[in-house]
Amino acid sequence: MIGIGAGDPDQVTVQAIKAMNRAEVFFVIGKGAEKQDLVDLRTGILDEHMRGPYRIVDIVDPPRDRTPSDYEGVVDDWHDRRAAIFEERFGAVDGVGAILVWGDPSLYDSTLRIVERVLSRGIETFEYSVIPGVTSVQSLAAQHRIVLNRIGEPVHITTGRRLRDGLPEGVRDAVVMLDADCSFTEVPGDDVQIWWGAYLGTEDEVLISGNLREVEAEIVRVRAELRERKGWIMDTYLLRS
Amino acid sequence: MIGIGAGDPDQVTVQAIKAMNRAEVFFVIGKGAEKQDLVDLRTGILDEHMRGPYRIVDIVDPPRDRTPSDYEGVVDDWHDRRAAIFEERFGAVDGVGAILVWGDPSLYDSTLRIVERVLSRGIETFEYSVIPGVTSVQSLAAQHRIVLNRIGEPVHITTGRRLRDGLPEGVRDAVVMLDADCSFTEVPGDDVQIWWGAYLGTEDEVLISGNLREVEAEIVRVRAELRERKGWIMDTYLLRS
Repeated sequence: MIGIGAGDPDQVTVQAIKAMNRAEVFFVIGKGAEKQDLVDLRTGILDEHMRGPYRIVDIVDPPRDRTPSDYEGVVDDWHDRRAAIFEERFGAVDGVGAILVWGDPSLYDSTLRIVERVLSRGIETFEYSVIPGVTSVQSLAAQHRIVLNRIGEPVHITTGRRLRDGLPEGVRDAVVMLDADCSFTEVPGDDVQIWWGAYLGTEDEVLISGNLREVEAEIVRVRAELRERKGWIMDTYLLRS
Repeated sequence: MIGIGAGDPDQVTVQAIKAMNRAEVFFVIGKGAEKQDLVDLRTGILDEHMRGPYRIVDIVDPPRDRTPSDYEGVVDDWHDRRAAIFEERFGAVDGVGAILVWGDPSLYDSTLRIVERVLSRGIETFEYSVIPGVTSVQSLAAQHRIVLNRIGEPVHITTGRRLRDGLPEGVRDAVVMLDADCSFTEVPGDDVQIWWGAYLGTEDEVLISGNLREVEAEIVRVRAELRERKGWIMDTYLLRS
């Protein structure tokens, strides 16, 4: 399982490139037609770094209810259906397979859980290791040239969904991921800074920063335009109060 | 400013290698004799990835009060003295200089603040960019093969000092860095898991995980032995309650 960074083929580590070149098969997880350019980006990374021929095995994710009331239960069921598909694809391959993961497998990514679930079903057996990658959070900070934490202080990494419930008492620096609903507009206060970035590490990268109240409308507008134009968006941001 | 990962020369990104090879001078920040093998590790990374000759300019950190009562004030003063030293070293160089940062410049690293401070003094002028790197947090997760967050839940990144004051209400998953005092022993409860790692990404890497109450004494003992043997230690861990 190989973390490949936030999108720039140069953001891949030497360790990741070596691991790719040990693999005979790449399992490429597609999320549907609208994210075809993510698949293309991934193919570009392979073409850039592979020294020999390789084989792609597609894994198409089953559909998922995006607005469930029972969030954890629905995600759990979805992971089970994904595991069954992975198991079938794994079973068709002898030798070394690799899964490329955007960013890093340790942060808001389900691939590790799926692979563990395949193993726990007991039908396919294999060994695996995880190669860490640069996350979009590091890319965000690098492009804005900021440190995520203040001196000696914590940084909280959370989701748009959680942000809407309010940050825990005392949390003043929060990185927000997976926010499809511009939850930052619901954060109160006139003294909050935001550093926002979309398509980090790719040619389409967009950065906006400033006082939240002054730039929130611009981010909402730009985000909607970008999403409309490309059909998808990946973005993240830091809030500092 | 180039993030170079947690210690493994292979954990460097292609982007970092390209940036290194554009630099004529590397500013290497030493923290005193006891961390000479960190300087050696860094030199090893340069030797591995540089295609031509390069020059090293040493920057020796001024001494720092490690147990101040006025923590932020003392750190601020220390950064000012560091900035003066950086400024003098920068002033002696024409062309492209690079600073290599362990892990990533965005997480518990002061280099970005120092460089901004040098710029704000107005004597040396230069442009700079930040190349993100894999952090020890990603390495920890990869080596233990864990996801830092639970499904849809936040993850809190904090320091040993902050951990001793208690985690914010509702925080159940916390990555702890800069903990010289084994603060995990002061975390209450019988149902806390820990994933600990030291010297992540290097030949000396050590991993311990399990129920906190069952493994905390072992971590305290192993950590003291390692620190005694090498003269320094870098470690981090995830707590999950």
